[in-house]
Amino acid sequence: MVTRLSHYFLRTLREDPSDAEVTSHRLLVRAGYIRRQAPGVFAWLPLGLKVKAKIEAVVREEMANAGAYEVHFPALLPREPYEQTGRWEEYGDALFRLQDRKGADYLLAPTHEEVFTLLVKDLYSSYKDLPLTIYQIQDKYRDEARPRAGLLRGREFTMKDAYSFDYTDAGLDASYQAQREAYERIFTRLGLEYVIVQADAGAMGGSRSEEFLHPTPVGEDTFVRSDGGYAANVEAFTTVAPEPIPFDGLPEPVIYDSPDTPTIATLVAHANAHLDAPAEGEWTAAHTLKNVVLALTHLDGTRELVVVGLPGDRDVDDKRVEVAFAPAAVEAATEADFERHPLLVKGYIGPWTPTGPLLGEESATGIRYVLDPRVVDGTSWITGANAHEKHVHSLVAGRDFAADGFVEVATVREGDPAPDGSGPVHLARGMEIGHVFQLGRKYAEALGLKVLDENGKLVTVTMGSYGIGVTRILAIIAELNNDDKGLIWPASIAPFDVHVVATGRDAVAFELAASVADRLEAAGLDVLYDDRAKVSPGVKFGDAELIGVPRILIVGRGAADGEVELWDRRTGDRRSLPVADAVAELSS
Amino acid sequence: MVTRLSHYFLRTLREDPSDAEVTSHRLLVRAGYIRRQAPGVFAWLPLGLKVKAKIEAVVREEMANAGAYEVHFPALLPREPYEQTGRWEEYGDALFRLQDRKGADYLLAPTHEEVFTLLVKDLYSSYKDLPLTIYQIQDKYRDEARPRAGLLRGREFTMKDAYSFDYTDAGLDASYQAQREAYERIFTRLGLEYVIVQADAGAMGGSRSEEFLHPTPVGEDTFVRSDGGYAANVEAFTTVAPEPIPFDGLPEPVIYDSPDTPTIATLVAHANAHLDAPAEGEWTAAHTLKNVVLALTHLDGTRELVVVGLPGDRDVDDKRVEVAFAPAAVEAATEADFERHPLLVKGYIGPWTPTGPLLGEESATGIRYVLDPRVVDGTSWITGANAHEKHVHSLVAGRDFAADGFVEVATVREGDPAPDGSGPVHLARGMEIGHVFQLGRKYAEALGLKVLDENGKLVTVTMGSYGIGVTRILAIIAELNNDDKGLIWPASIAPFDVHVVATGRDAVAFELAASVADRLEAAGLDVLYDDRAKVSPGVKFGDAELIGVPRILIVGRGAADGEVELWDRRTGDRRSLPVADAVAELSS
Repeated sequence: MVTRLSHYFLRTLREDPSDAEVTSHRLLVRAGYIRRQAPGVFAWLPLGLKVKAKIEAVVREEMANAGAYEVHFPALLPREPYEQTGRWEEYGDALFRLQDRKGADYLLAPTHEEVFTLLVKDLYSSYKDLPLTIYQIQDKYRDEARPRAGLLRGREFTMKDAYSFDYTDAGLDASYQAQREAYERIFTRLGLEYVIVQADAGAMGGSRSEEFLHPTPVGEDTFVRSDGGYAANVEAFTTVAPEPIPFDGLPEPVIYDSPDTPTIATLVAHANAHLDAPAEGEWTAAHTLKNVVLALTHLDGTRELVVVGLPGDRDVDDKRVEVAFAPAAVEAATEADFERHPLLVKGYIGPWTPTGPLLGEESATGIRYVLDPRVVDGTSWITGANAHEKHVHSLVAGRDFAADGFVEVATVREGDPAPDGSGPVHLARGMEIGHVFQLGRKYAEALGLKVLDENGKLVTVTMGSYGIGVTRILAIIAELNNDDKGLIWPASIAPFDVHVVATGRDAVAFELAASVADRLEAAGLDVLYDDRAKVSPGVKFGDAELIGVPRILIVGRGAADGEVELWDRRTGDRRSLPVADAVAELSS
Repeated sequence: MVTRLSHYFLRTLREDPSDAEVTSHRLLVRAGYIRRQAPGVFAWLPLGLKVKAKIEAVVREEMANAGAYEVHFPALLPREPYEQTGRWEEYGDALFRLQDRKGADYLLAPTHEEVFTLLVKDLYSSYKDLPLTIYQIQDKYRDEARPRAGLLRGREFTMKDAYSFDYTDAGLDASYQAQREAYERIFTRLGLEYVIVQADAGAMGGSRSEEFLHPTPVGEDTFVRSDGGYAANVEAFTTVAPEPIPFDGLPEPVIYDSPDTPTIATLVAHANAHLDAPAEGEWTAAHTLKNVVLALTHLDGTRELVVVGLPGDRDVDDKRVEVAFAPAAVEAATEADFERHPLLVKGYIGPWTPTGPLLGEESATGIRYVLDPRVVDGTSWITGANAHEKHVHSLVAGRDFAADGFVEVATVREGDPAPDGSGPVHLARGMEIGHVFQLGRKYAEALGLKVLDENGKLVTVTMGSYGIGVTRILAIIAELNNDDKGLIWPASIAPFDVHVVATGRDAVAFELAASVADRLEAAGLDVLYDDRAKVSPGVKFGDAELIGVPRILIVGRGAADGEVELWDRRTGDRRSLPVADAVAELSS
């Protein structure tokens, strides 16, 4: 049945919505695809729902090709399973929690590892039942602190989440690979260029994780790649630590006056003016050890200060910090924190004092001290001497001070060596479009999912989890496929196959347009027909450009001669041709 | 792609789930269609999801045929619109309420009138935009006091809810009729016999309402119908009141001793023993006026007693009471209520005392008094005299006592006259399968949905709302289509078109079964193939019977001779035929 615009539930808007920060949000609202209901919560109008359904159909087909079966879980779930894995707490404010009339705790699930695990535990008991991959396409909830960018970071969103179950590590590898390949097919079919990057698996408690990123300069995520094939997001990048240096013959630490040097830049300038030059010829920020005081808030509400020591030419990267200290929340230490720790002299902090360590769990302050991996034993540093306008030089790691551990929180830079030896990395930006995780046995252990193996022994199942944000993907495709006139959908997911526009006041044009629309539908195409009688061609063309069906057929002045115009929305190309040729071309 | 049972995510259970109260729940769990997650909250396994999708497809097609467009609203909605219509409060404990991290109030929507109204208000402004019918198929939430009967009364359930928008009453009639006819087509396609009954429209604030009931002796709803075509559910049935009787010549009330007559039966027996016989020859319960004390809890938490006066041969019907006094919650008055009102003498309550009225807002007690419509002016009653073991006879309505109004709460009985004069009604039972409402202008008024009419005047839009519980329908179909072996799906919504079973240990049977399954799939059928190698024929047949695909093809002993068996799950008929004939028959 041809969809006639005169009756269709669609109103395009002339004005951009006032709250739209990104193009996809702006155009999807203006073109009548979505409407905001609350911050980060949207209703889907007919056009939007059609595009969403087409993306879901592609995902379903490729999940079936990967041997995954579809199930469907409720959004409303009881607290207990999430309590057992610790995520009821770990999610913090991002979890929508509620109680039923009897006071029982529930949540709106942000992801479903727990209940998938329990379902398989409920039904399966033998290694013969495995491998298994099951998935759902389902509406999820996350109470984002700042929902933004329309569908890109909503509080309600549709996800395809798949979960694999195996009883051997090799099995997990195979299941993971099958999903990874399904993702490649999905993104290819959706016309979404992608880069697969190593990702941090820690947050989900797993062992291996990769992100599918769409590379774009406007992406919100930074990733690195080397010409030799390494790719990782910055959270997962690992530093190549230099070799340790023997202590023999290294000079002893010397405290010196360093007036007016509260910053790395002033400290370096002062060193070049007053200290003997180093072997490299000149002091640089890389010779200094910067000590950054962070305040962690743990899940139980306790606040802990941690000092991170890193070369002075690097900063602390917020995203890497977040991952490194998860699930604790991290912020810079406040004035109040410094007041509670008078031994920390702001701007002059260092791990060492002549009478013993200042930092580290066994130290004067008892404050945990963690180091960037570049601060290996035998490296010599200029750093704070824990007194106003005093620094120390020739302070040697491993000899004069020790750490409670190493941490990957320093900024990653263009040219840093890839950890796999494949050369220097380049920085790039991208948008996350998919994520695959090897969860390992964390959830199965927490929830007791075991099966009998070939020898009749109970073994814990190992799992993977694989996500694609369907509504996010839709927004990203909109973000990448538009011009100043509106959306330009890839044909595979356009809301309609053809947009027929009748123009003018001549009944012949409308009759021909209606018959062409019917013939195209009969040929199996989904047709939107702009049959509005009292709307000007300009408005109709504007709406067609805004809505973004890639192929537009104009029936107007030439109708009496059987001539129509084919308009390619993407290239802008418009050409006249006989109506039969147009129908044949569109139907082929 | 043929679905092979050896890999499919399906485990049938031998035992009935312990919490299953109804057949559909028991069989859907045992056959691997659904699993319980929390009270009234279920996960859908692959088989269940397939059946659900088929029902949804039928609903979608008929909505499209009725000119309705699909949209999709979130389940999570802000409080404000529901506050504006009063439903934030009216829903009471049945509404799942929650707050986001900023403390803003949200709900999980049980129905979406408010936001559909606001969406249309947002986009439409002229009568030319109307009529419009839009719908969604969406997961809804209702915090039932006692979720039960599996999917029949869950706390999360999938609904098709449609809403129509018109600017004239005639337009609403037409939109209502279009949905009503779509419902008839849907239920016919789903093989669900139905009766359309008048329903109470009050709860939704509307003017006209009908329910689609599937007539079945095990239905939870009672309805009535006359041979002349009247049909209504008991909540909507209206009493035919007799004509008033002139007071002239009616005897005056007489208080008399009635020892040991706390019940209607004892009172009637006493009257026949001690009072002059009535014109009809004998005193019956119908001559007595029973006064039932109800306690209403209003939305603001206040408790109010109300006395209902009705002929002693009728009881108060719980469902009619619920509707009559909604949104107040109603229960029988408690001992504590009676203690607070010592003028109410339990077992001997009446509206009248020789010194003035006892009941009614202007009376000694101030308690509201409402009457059954049969208690018309001039009717004469035996009723309580408000003292222990005292009654009064010849008490005449309208002369000796008056009411604060009439109320339809008395039980409806076989043989009661239909209000439309179409004869006596019969009682029957059914299950609600759909509901159509003319909401009128309640929601549009509360939320300010107006459009400009032909004369440029702002008019309030009039609305309809139309619901089908998709998951409930699925359960009802399961409830109606089963035997002691398991489910028997109608072909139109069966999870698979054919269930191929290979039996024995002969490779020939498995090879033939696989090739037949492939051929059936190639012919466009959706095939479940039980290819399990080490499972006995008995277990395979039992699973096939439990799962309930209506057509089963057995490939076993006759395989070497090219013979297979076709098994009709519904009739039990099994017959051998050559494989080519079987494929041809199934494919046709």
